[in-house]
Formats: sequence, structure tokens, C-alpha cells
Amino acid sequence: MASDHTFQAPTGTRDFYPTDLNRLRYVTEAWRRTSIVHGFDQIDGPTFEHLDLYTVKSGEGIVSELFSFERAGGEKTYALRPEFTPTLARMYAARANALPRPTRWFCTPSFFRAERPQRGRLREFTQWNCDILGDDSVQADAELIACAVESLRALGLSPEHVKVRISHRGAVEQMLTKRGVEPERHAEYFGLLDKVGKISNDAFIEAARKLGMDAPEAVKLLATMAQTTRYEAPTTQVMLHQETPGAPAEYFRALFAALDQLDASEWCVLNLGIVRGLAYYTGMVFEIHEANGAERAIAGGGRYDRLIELFGGPPTPAVGFGMGDVVLSLVLQDRGLMPTDDQIADRLGLRPDAMIFSNGTPEADALVPRVAAALRREGLHARRSAKSTRNVGKLLQDAAKARARFAVIVESDTLATIKDLASGRQEQVPIGEVPPWLRRL
Amino acid sequence: MASDHTFQAPTGTRDFYPTDLNRLRYVTEAWRRTSIVHGFDQIDGPTFEHLDLYTVKSGEGIVSELFSFERAGGEKTYALRPEFTPTLARMYAARANALPRPTRWFCTPSFFRAERPQRGRLREFTQWNCDILGDDSVQADAELIACAVESLRALGLSPEHVKVRISHRGAVEQMLTKRGVEPERHAEYFGLLDKVGKISNDAFIEAARKLGMDAPEAVKLLATMAQTTRYEAPTTQVMLHQETPGAPAEYFRALFAALDQLDASEWCVLNLGIVRGLAYYTGMVFEIHEANGAERAIAGGGRYDRLIELFGGPPTPAVGFGMGDVVLSLVLQDRGLMPTDDQIADRLGLRPDAMIFSNGTPEADALVPRVAAALRREGLHARRSAKSTRNVGKLLQDAAKARARFAVIVESDTLATIKDLASGRQEQVPIGEVPPWLRRL
Repeated sequence: MASDHTFQAPTGTRDFYPTDLNRLRYVTEAWRRTSIVHGFDQIDGPTFEHLDLYTVKSGEGIVSELFSFERAGGEKTYALRPEFTPTLARMYAARANALPRPTRWFCTPSFFRAERPQRGRLREFTQWNCDILGDDSVQADAELIACAVESLRALGLSPEHVKVRISHRGAVEQMLTKRGVEPERHAEYFGLLDKVGKISNDAFIEAARKLGMDAPEAVKLLATMAQTTRYEAPTTQVMLHQETPGAPAEYFRALFAALDQLDASEWCVLNLGIVRGLAYYTGMVFEIHEANGAERAIAGGGRYDRLIELFGGPPTPAVGFGMGDVVLSLVLQDRGLMPTDDQIADRLGLRPDAMIFSNGTPEADALVPRVAAALRREGLHARRSAKSTRNVGKLLQDAAKARARFAVIVESDTLATIKDLASGRQEQVPIGEVPPWLRRL
Repeated sequence: MASDHTFQAPTGTRDFYPTDLNRLRYVTEAWRRTSIVHGFDQIDGPTFEHLDLYTVKSGEGIVSELFSFERAGGEKTYALRPEFTPTLARMYAARANALPRPTRWFCTPSFFRAERPQRGRLREFTQWNCDILGDDSVQADAELIACAVESLRALGLSPEHVKVRISHRGAVEQMLTKRGVEPERHAEYFGLLDKVGKISNDAFIEAARKLGMDAPEAVKLLATMAQTTRYEAPTTQVMLHQETPGAPAEYFRALFAALDQLDASEWCVLNLGIVRGLAYYTGMVFEIHEANGAERAIAGGGRYDRLIELFGGPPTPAVGFGMGDVVLSLVLQDRGLMPTDDQIADRLGLRPDAMIFSNGTPEADALVPRVAAALRREGLHARRSAKSTRNVGKLLQDAAKARARFAVIVESDTLATIKDLASGRQEQVPIGEVPPWLRRL
């Protein structure tokens, strides 16, 4: 009854075999642990939402990027979540009055985009989201960026490997105003500006021309956007004043001072080329990139002070970011910072405590499952050899290959030998003493 | 720009606020830890699959229970996964030759059913799956059941609260044969038999009549299926011989002996009423139920020795189960076994190590973020009070309310007071000593 199908995972999705899943968990556990020490509480929402949760914010244009569907015979249209912010805004708005101010939330679920898969961009991916709601301070912006930075530091990255590029919607708007773009048309330009670096300069200039900006102004805009500089107080203030006369220069000064306090400023640069395509940002925006500009953005976020209201909640300042697993894992691999499978297994607490087998006598054979069960009930990770051999030497090799700390050889219905596979030391103990004996070590 | 929509989660899905998410994690972490100590490796697959992955196994009938969709402009039809076994079979078949024998896999992702939501049955739920592939032994069946049992024991349940009801497709077939049902028609009956306990006896008798079984035989069948007995060797063998003359009586004897060795037999009963609706089971089948029969099944599974072949792999014996979070959480709540939110937070390692605030002087204020960042970089969970007061007494109350272990009061740019909030003891230490001081405790 074999089938004529060859079944495969859908394009742009992944099968996670054990070592793949452990590599993903190595990243997501770093995210989770970083979130917790920074005082964020974990939440989650449905994997799919009503489609209009996304269209109310982003317009109908987003529909082609979504996996949307209806229940058979149902009238409502749903979509797999492409990002977390609308769910978060909906959840916050529903309980705004009962929630602490500030509220600090994180999550690490799966998201979905119906786009053509490319390097660093899949149709299903895991993304970490951190958000601080109800706090409009520069300090909140800095803490949020520092939280992202600390997760990267925990994964072995340094400011040589990655850079946080920081901008501000106010500064971007000033750049556009200086080039003669009316405020009503700024939103149209954000989508175009967000493409810088992804499309050629010629394509940018042509697209800007279609929006009504002449080529010399577009070239100047590109030049300003390409500047990526460490923040140095007087120099940067002068630059900002020239490029974006009404820009939030004081904001940048305060932000970089706060980042400095959090020991994160070395990771950060000012780059007015960071715009973020999404319409909902209202203030600071940032992206984290591989330092040489390789790969897509590792993370992106910013301040969105008007979104909670849009979802029916009270006016609530908010700042957040998302960091996906796909690009981050590529950067870790490219930089040689993804630990080996064994190292990851050790860090995730997956190394077996004991491999259990018998010396080959029938009464010992019969006791192996019982000893394994007793160890497991004590919280010890006990494996049994899959080898059918009765050769104790071969079984010990098998235990070493499984990287068990101890081999437990059942010798009779009363005695077992415990062998420390690192030191080679061994000891005979009564069967009933095996769990407490291993527990102590 | 407030919207006229009131946004809500789709019917049958859940928003997980922090305490909800922690309760879910309390359950999933028990599953994960139990899986690991039992030697299972974690895997995962895509959240959606090609629709035909499900129809090849279950026929077109399943489509109405699925959330299925197409990509805009795409030709392939996808479905949100309603269960894990087809994904697991696909993944195993694709790498069968490279995988160890036996392979022990687990996962705890979300699944989706487009049914009407009911108590214990939602449209999105989390489910733990454990499978042993490449091992046809009774011992594998017993270890799999014991793994499910140990997770329940770890969550505080006992054999008084829940029972594992065990049956065998061979025994069910014999019951049908004894009632005059031809082997070719057994599959038709499995779906009906699976409804016992969910529909009335009258409805069952009427449905059986439509399949061609007369009422007296249907009544006898119901009586046999209702028997739920502890396995006692001679008595049970006689019963099995009477009810299902060709039944795998020897199999049950060996299974219960193996369960006894694993200290799990007290949780288990023989119940030929367990059929499992799915067509793919070939041997032992089981369900775990609340002991009084309240709620739907907590878990269900069994042996499926022909499925891997159906997905293009080599003939591979396999046994597995799924356990959902929804019914299990209801049972824990009903039995008063769901710990308090504080207890869960403690078990998940979420209790703050330190709450940091200043004594109110400007130089101390300025140092608070720096001290918090230093603690976090050491892996310590540091929170800052959201209170804007400068009243140290109020701030200490706030720290106690957040259940922080220590309050760190920055006193100047060189000194901090560390107060143990349990004992009330306090000590002044140099600012730079705060992280190692807390690390040691």
C-alpha cells in the first residue's frame, strides 16, 4: 500500500530533526532567558487571527503577503499571523486598565509570510518580540535596545559582528521636508526609503522621480541615508542640524547617553537610512544588521505610540522589536559562533545521565527496565542501549558514544556496577541505591 | 483614528496573558522534562502541510475538519496541522536509513481543528506527541505508556485521578468477528465503536443496525466495551477468551507484566471499548481518561506499524501517543492540582532576584539603570520599580509585592544597600560588588 506521492514539507517551511530543533532552541532559550532577566513576561496569542486585524492597520495591500483562509461553511476570513504587533495591541487594548504601567511582554512564536522564499526569508519562521507599553521615556527605548543587544552578546556576538542602526521617524520626515516633500506625502516615501540597500541606486532614483523628486535631490537623500556613524556628541549634533534641521537631536543625545549607561552604545550607530516600512512607527526606529551589511536585518523595531488606540485601547506609548531566527542563525554560522551539536545538547541539559544495560544474565535483563524507570522518576535522564549484543565492552562504547555520564550495568537482582565514563572509576552498589547514588553526583 | 472594530481572538483560540502562558508552560515543561529523561529527542515540523498529506491517510472525509488554504495565485493547497503523526511519518520516511533504531521522538507544538469549540476541545491547542519508531516489542509499548503516566505523576496526578484504558485492534476485530461482522467491514465499524460514550446507547444501536448488526448483538457489544477492569492474570485471560476468542491474550499478559516492572500498572485498566477512530492503528491502542469518566480523553495513542510505509519509508513498526493541554488542564483544575500562579512562577524560575531603586538622590538615580544592566549581564533577573515615589518604604513594599528576593537601594555613586526581603537583613556594599554579591546567594 505504498503511496506514489513523495511527501515534502511545503516550500519555505522547515523540518526540525533533533539537531535542527536543538539549534533553534539554543537561540530561543537565549532570547527567553534575556527577556526574563530584563523583566519581561511571556505571552502568546492565536496562530491565526481575523484577517481584518491586519488590514485595519496595514490596508488591503498586505493581503497578498498573508496566508488567509476561511473555515469550510464559515463566513469569517482568517490569516496566519505575519507579525505579532497587531495581536499584542489587541491583547493590550482589551485589558489596558488592569495591566501594570509599564507592561513588558515578550513572546517567541512562529510567523508566516506568503512570499517567495529567499536566503534569510522563509514562509514560516520563529520570531522573538519584546515590547514595553505605557512608558514614553528615552530610558524605555534604551532598555529595549539593550535587551536585544544582550541576547546577541549571550550568543557570543560582539560589536565587531553586528551593529544596531538607529534612526527616528521625525528625522526621516525632516530629511524629506528638506527635499521639498509635503508632509501629507511622507507616508508614500517611507515604503520607498525602506527599499534603500535592497534595490539599486538607479532604481531608487527612478522610483523617487515617479513620486515627484528630481534626481539631484534623490542623490543627496541617498548620501544622507548611507551615513552610518558612531554617535559623537558635537559632531553628530552639527550633522543632524544640517541634514534634518528640525530633527530630534536632543532625543538622540539622550538615547545614546542612556545606551552608554547600559553598556550598549558600542553596538549602536546613527543611521538615518533606517526607516522601517510599517506605517505605525511614530518615533525612534532601529534595525540590527551584520556589521558588513551581509544578510537581511537581524532585528527591527521602534516606537509606535498611536497603535494601541487604533485597536480600541487608551492612548498608550509603546516601543518594541522583532528578531527572527533565520537571519540570526545564518550570522552565527557565518561567524563560526554556532556551537557544535554536542555543546548545544550540553547547554540545553540534554546529556544522558546514565546508559543502562545488563551483564547478560536473565535475572539482570529483567531488571533493566525497572532500574531505568526508577532513575527517570528521580528526574535522571536514563537511556537504554539499543544494541542487542551482550558484549559489555561494546555496550560501554555505545554509552560513551551517547555521551552518557555513567554506565549502569545490572549484575544480578541485587547488585549493579556504576561506571563513571569520564574517569573510568567504577563501583558496585545495591540495585536500590542506584538512583540516590547518581542523584548525588 | 480609533477604530469601530472590537477585535477579539478567533472563536476557539486563546490569548495567553502572562499567568495563562505560565500555566501552559507548567504543563509543557513537565511534558518536555519527562520526554527527555525517557530518552526522547525533540523535533518539530511545519505548522501547515500539503493538504494531501492528510487526505492520503484519512481520505477526503477529513477535509471538513481542517483549516485549509491556498497561497494567493498559488496552485498548492495547504492545511494547518490537525495532528502530528503524518508529519512524523513523512519526516521519518525521508531519512529512515540514517536514523537510529529505535528512534524516540517528541514534540509539543500547536494543532488546529475546524470544529465547533466545546468544553475540552478548541480550534487551536497544544499537544505533546511521543513516538518510538523501529521497535516492535511489547517493552516499547509499555515504555511509551509509562512515559505518559510519569508526566501525569510529575503534575501531581495519581491512579485515583486518572486511568489508562488499554485495548488492542486485534481484540476489537475479534469482538466484531464474534458478532458476525466480516473482516472487510471492520474499518467501517471502528468509527462507530469510537463513538461509544459520546453518543447514547440507543443512537449506537440504531447506527449499528444501519451497518447491519441486529440490536441484541449491538447490546452485547456495548456490554463488552463497557467493561473496565484491572488486569488480573487468570480472570482476565478467561474473560478475553470468552469475548474475543482469537484475541491477543498473550500480548496483554506481557504488556501488563512490563507495565508492572515500570511501576505503571496501577494506572492501567483493560477496556475493549477503546478503539480510536483513526484508521492507521494496527495493534495496541489506549486512551487516558479522568477516573470518573469526566471530560474527554486526556491522551490517546497506539501502535501503527504500517504508516511509515504509506509515506514512502521502509516497513517500520511504530507506537505513539498525543496528549493535549486543554483537557489535562481542566482535570488538574478540577482536582485542585493546578498550583497557584506564584508557585508556577517559582517553578519556572521567573521570580525576580532583585528589585533596584535609588534612595532619591540625583547621583543614585543616574546609576540605577547601570546597576540593573550589570546584574542582568550576570544572568540575574533584575526589575526596576515602576513607582515614581521617592519613599523608600513604599519602594520596599513594591519589591515585596513583586516577590523579589532582594531589594538593591543605590545610595550614592559608590555604595548600595542590599536587603534580603525574606529575613529583613541588610548590608551596604560597594556598587561594583553588587552583582557578585547577589550571584553568590
